[in-house]
Amino acid sequence: MPIVRTNIARPPSSALEALASAGVATVHEAQGRRGLLASYLRPIYRPARIAGAAVTCRVAPGDNWTIHVAAEQCGPGDILVVAPTSPCEDGYFGELLAVSLRARGVQGLVIDAGVRDVTDLTKMQFPVWSKAVSAQGTVKETLGDVNVPIVCAGALIHPGDVIVADDDGVCVVAREEAEAVARASAKREAKEADTRKRLADGELGLDLYEMRARLRAKGLTYVDAVTGAERT
Amino acid sequence: MPIVRTNIARPPSSALEALASAGVATVHEAQGRRGLLASYLRPIYRPARIAGAAVTCRVAPGDNWTIHVAAEQCGPGDILVVAPTSPCEDGYFGELLAVSLRARGVQGLVIDAGVRDVTDLTKMQFPVWSKAVSAQGTVKETLGDVNVPIVCAGALIHPGDVIVADDDGVCVVAREEAEAVARASAKREAKEADTRKRLADGELGLDLYEMRARLRAKGLTYVDAVTGAERT
Amino acid sequence: MPIVRTNIARPPSSALEALASAGVATVHEAQGRRGLLASYLRPIYRPARIAGAAVTCRVAPGDNWTIHVAAEQCGPGDILVVAPTSPCEDGYFGELLAVSLRARGVQGLVIDAGVRDVTDLTKMQFPVWSKAVSAQGTVKETLGDVNVPIVCAGALIHPGDVIVADDDGVCVVAREEAEAVARASAKREAKEADTRKRLADGELGLDLYEMRARLRAKGLTYVDAVTGAERT
Amino acid sequence: MPIVRTNIARPPSSALEALASAGVATVHEAQGRRGLLASYLRPIYRPARIAGAAVTCRVAPGDNWTIHVAAEQCGPGDILVVAPTSPCEDGYFGELLAVSLRARGVQGLVIDAGVRDVTDLTKMQFPVWSKAVSAQGTVKETLGDVNVPIVCAGALIHPGDVIVADDDGVCVVAREEAEAVARASAKREAKEADTRKRLADGELGLDLYEMRARLRAKGLTYVDAVTGAERT
Amino acid sequence: MPIVRTNIARPPSSALEALASAGVATVHEAQGRRGLLASYLRPIYRPARIAGAAVTCRVAPGDNWTIHVAAEQCGPGDILVVAPTSPCEDGYFGELLAVSLRARGVQGLVIDAGVRDVTDLTKMQFPVWSKAVSAQGTVKETLGDVNVPIVCAGALIHPGDVIVADDDGVCVVAREEAEAVARASAKREAKEADTRKRLADGELGLDLYEMRARLRAKGLTYVDAVTGAERT
Amino acid sequence: MPIVRTNIARPPSSALEALASAGVATVHEAQGRRGLLASYLRPIYRPARIAGAAVTCRVAPGDNWTIHVAAEQCGPGDILVVAPTSPCEDGYFGELLAVSLRARGVQGLVIDAGVRDVTDLTKMQFPVWSKAVSAQGTVKETLGDVNVPIVCAGALIHPGDVIVADDDGVCVVAREEAEAVARASAKREAKEADTRKRLADGELGLDLYEMRARLRAKGLTYVDAVTGAERT
Repeated sequence: MPIVRTNIARPPSSALEALASAGVATVHEAQGRRGLLASYLRPIYRPARIAGAAVTCRVAPGDNWTIHVAAEQCGPGDILVVAPTSPCEDGYFGELLAVSLRARGVQGLVIDAGVRDVTDLTKMQFPVWSKAVSAQGTVKETLGDVNVPIVCAGALIHPGDVIVADDDGVCVVAREEAEAVARASAKREAKEADTRKRLADGELGLDLYEMRARLRAKGLTYVDAVTGAERT
Repeated sequence: MPIVRTNIARPPSSALEALASAGVATVHEAQGRRGLLASYLRPIYRPARIAGAAVTCRVAPGDNWTIHVAAEQCGPGDILVVAPTSPCEDGYFGELLAVSLRARGVQGLVIDAGVRDVTDLTKMQFPVWSKAVSAQGTVKETLGDVNVPIVCAGALIHPGDVIVADDDGVCVVAREEAEAVARASAKREAKEADTRKRLADGELGLDLYEMRARLRAKGLTYVDAVTGAERT
Repeated sequence: MPIVRTNIARPPSSALEALASAGVATVHEAQGRRGLLASYLRPIYRPARIAGAAVTCRVAPGDNWTIHVAAEQCGPGDILVVAPTSPCEDGYFGELLAVSLRARGVQGLVIDAGVRDVTDLTKMQFPVWSKAVSAQGTVKETLGDVNVPIVCAGALIHPGDVIVADDDGVCVVAREEAEAVARASAKREAKEADTRKRLADGELGLDLYEMRARLRAKGLTYVDAVTGAERT
Repeated sequence: MPIVRTNIARPPSSALEALASAGVATVHEAQGRRGLLASYLRPIYRPARIAGAAVTCRVAPGDNWTIHVAAEQCGPGDILVVAPTSPCEDGYFGELLAVSLRARGVQGLVIDAGVRDVTDLTKMQFPVWSKAVSAQGTVKETLGDVNVPIVCAGALIHPGDVIVADDDGVCVVAREEAEAVARASAKREAKEADTRKRLADGELGLDLYEMRARLRAKGLTYVDAVTGAERT
Repeated sequence: MPIVRTNIARPPSSALEALASAGVATVHEAQGRRGLLASYLRPIYRPARIAGAAVTCRVAPGDNWTIHVAAEQCGPGDILVVAPTSPCEDGYFGELLAVSLRARGVQGLVIDAGVRDVTDLTKMQFPVWSKAVSAQGTVKETLGDVNVPIVCAGALIHPGDVIVADDDGVCVVAREEAEAVARASAKREAKEADTRKRLADGELGLDLYEMRARLRAKGLTYVDAVTGAERT
Repeated sequence: MPIVRTNIARPPSSALEALASAGVATVHEAQGRRGLLASYLRPIYRPARIAGAAVTCRVAPGDNWTIHVAAEQCGPGDILVVAPTSPCEDGYFGELLAVSLRARGVQGLVIDAGVRDVTDLTKMQFPVWSKAVSAQGTVKETLGDVNVPIVCAGALIHPGDVIVADDDGVCVVAREEAEAVARASAKREAKEADTRKRLADGELGLDLYEMRARLRAKGLTYVDAVTGAERT
């Protein structure tokens, strides 16, 4: 039987701003290279960068009824995350649903399927990460579930987890780990600022990251293309 | 033997403006969710939105000779629609052909294959919906047909049918149905304006579309994530 | 054993500007429709157009260590070309590596894999042609080779070959042929200017390219859609 | 509104045996290289070869209700042809439906979607050409149409057209052309018998098809890899 | 840090035989159309059908080191389930690993990547469901985890869950639900036996499943193709 | 201009038997994990295993004329290797060409495109590794080249190189390295025989390959799922 879980826990808002600021690549690294959704999810416009709590929604193929049910469960700052029960690229979501979600304060949509009205969504600056852009309409016959754990684009997402999405893609952070990952991300960014400066000044990664000894140990050989001279 | 049908019937121009204004998603819905071309056809730049009569062109793989033949059959407001006889992503079409088509008043191109010179086509604002962007050149050895019914990106297209194309994709409307679909599209848009206002004001789709009784009938259950309390 | 070839020969700089100006489609035609990389390589932003000497880099799947080794071999005007030893879409390259390459004067990156930090790369205007955008991080465990011949996106590339890349894709020109192809490209462009003018004036390709006799020889038949009258 | 067309015309049975015997590649050539369905349709077991009248069925994504409706329209020798209204790989069809169709004398199934129970279907020797093998179940909520023209795997199919299917794929022959194509196929086969004998005896295609003069005209040059000597 | 969970709980063996006997399509239906792995996982030979407890293994792209670690955790009747941390089709597994697993009583392998030595694996009758067949070798540099929850081909799998795999694909059943699903599957099979008999005797699904009233309610119209007469 | 190189050098026949016996996975490993063609090349039937000298053939998309030219250059034991100049899945090759090649002693075909008549080719036991099975016919209008270096399915192949092909896929060995790789392959196989015996006797790869110390060094932790006890 289809169910809707209401009143889900959400991550502390303090972490969300930090995670949005860090962005997907940094957050993904900071939590040990976990949580990335498949790279076929692409933003409908660029640039875009958001982080918020996931309201999850499992839909039947070609049927967007459950999205209307999910809308009621969304609140300010949330991100709606939709996955079909079997692969589908239909246009489950368009401008009217975006208007409705925006009225509730929702930040954006992540959908492992298709989206339409992308001109309007772009004008509204309502960001969507989707598998496809497709005008293909859907029906309202089969119910799915709201706020249950789902696998979306290859990643497990629990309701209330943090979704971070930007031009590089989409990453999920477990709700309980949101603050720790936010701190680790900030740390990583601070460190990168120094690295960036040294690289911009012409220092090589080989030196900065102290790779030369290990390269030698791996047997890397340099061969002069002109003289044929070899060195390690 | 290869043939060219000349002097094809075209849809009434009155319908074209209305269909372009409605856009692909609306037109597709207004004619009963039919006529959509496969979503792998993408515009080379955004935004773009056109509607016009189809001049159809069937080409051999890797051979764009027939496009030159088709150009002569194109007139003001037309949209050239090209499909290869077997899947091919070569760059059949580029800036010079666009210059030629524009000189004849053609609005744009839909091609189930590749296109090139996309920088120039973007500068010219000559819109193209294609399967691929590819610089791969083509030969001029094998003739195809012009203005015969073709299957393009999974949809059947007769010469003179209306092609509607925008950022969401491409849709075909049978020539005979163009005016009826234009009217249905306009009606749909009018109704959406009211819906949009109510959704923006915070009314839920569940209420606006009167879905709650049917949800209950389907057995949808609400479970409070904190208390575990259930309700329907 | 992994090797790095140093001190590779590069093409005469005189040819590079001409090839960049001509662009991928023209260069590809001018050298006999050879050298195109697969069309799934797409620029991360548009417009972009560069030509430069290839520094080649073969990497293990999910491992970007060798890119750091390759950076040292890059000089002003070069283009780094990276191919994995088996298909991989991970994000091998991001903003920090771009900062490092830019400090050395590198023009851009061509990679048969994924890239990340595309917002930053776009801001920096550091152009990348890649198979995917993916935040997926990589490790530094397995060494590949630098400046050996590689197959990248289906094309054979020797270190020092010219890479031409623009919005249409990527093309390789053998170093030894760079000047001849540059001349052929310029010639082709000059000729196209006249063609463009005639097409813009409404002359048909059928006449301009003198195709009508050959069409007749192929048996092309024109059928009037209204009267059914046939002619050749 | 969904419709079922009953009492459709079928091709003369005399043509079917000849078309089955000729097979897909020959039939496709004999009718001028037209009518092939996309090569992603694959037989679930090999060898298999059938020809019969198409009963067409358009289904909603993830919904096989209409197949039950179509079954009633199928008679002895028919082939059921199913296409979804948007791309879907769910398992619309399994052993029970095959038992039902076999009871009505149906020869096999062509489906631009998924199929399941392939072990049982193989044991029954009920041939299926499908896009996917998938156990994913479907619902029965949305009706499609039966015996209307459909586009299946890129080809237009009218009810009553001949479907020819074998290990090479699937081809459609218009009902009205069935006898002419059967004759042309038989002729082609007769000619191939002689060709086969001559090729088996070591005669080259270059001589048998008298290609040498045309090769010379195209400028083909032979270069001895050892001596470098050239000849045309 | 990489971890291995030892001593995992396994499902009751009584349920496994019943689930294997029912097969993937039935089990998937019996548990409410959940748990199917993506249909791109294909058996390397047919027929094959197994059910067993999952030992899960998360591997780095192009690196099969962790599979050796996982082997030690496998016992009689188990099925090894392997997923890479980013998409990869390399040949992680071959005949020697199969010999090792068989020595421990392992029934088979499910891998969201590539496999090699398929001739030998077929001779041994060691069944594998994989995304690809590829001879591409892997390294042993980066460790993953064993017996942690993984997402494999789009489905969440906990160690000790039941894997059911046959010619239709692969399905996962939660360990705690194994017996209930086994019972539901048996019930479903019993019912299908009667249905099969009635369908074989020529009864239509429309009657057997009592669909006719609902079809009428949906407005299904029958049109005689010859006379044009309509009925509902 | 199209060229045919005649009289190419071939590898010593002594190496071919050894390479065929070793098979693709072993040969690929023995030459340092190089030379594999993309895994989308699949045999049309299994089992099949051959090794022979490559006669290379570059064809235009949808045009198999050059294959007839290449046939004349093939001799006993050769393997014809065909690659199109842009991606194409048409059925370039069928039974008649196989009869012709067999009359010349050719062992099989590797083609980065489609093949047809697979029932007949299977009956003849003429092995083919292809990207697709497709009945789509081709024309004879545009010439390509024979016995020039080509990139086929992502690998560079020179005429006279050794092609090894079996159920795992296709691998190329440079002609000059054929004997060395054959020796390395035999050595590898000899070693594997002992490994196989030890694994069959229940020895773990962890012990046989002496991995335990390195696992500890990487920080691998074992956690008892029941007690929670940790060890390294």
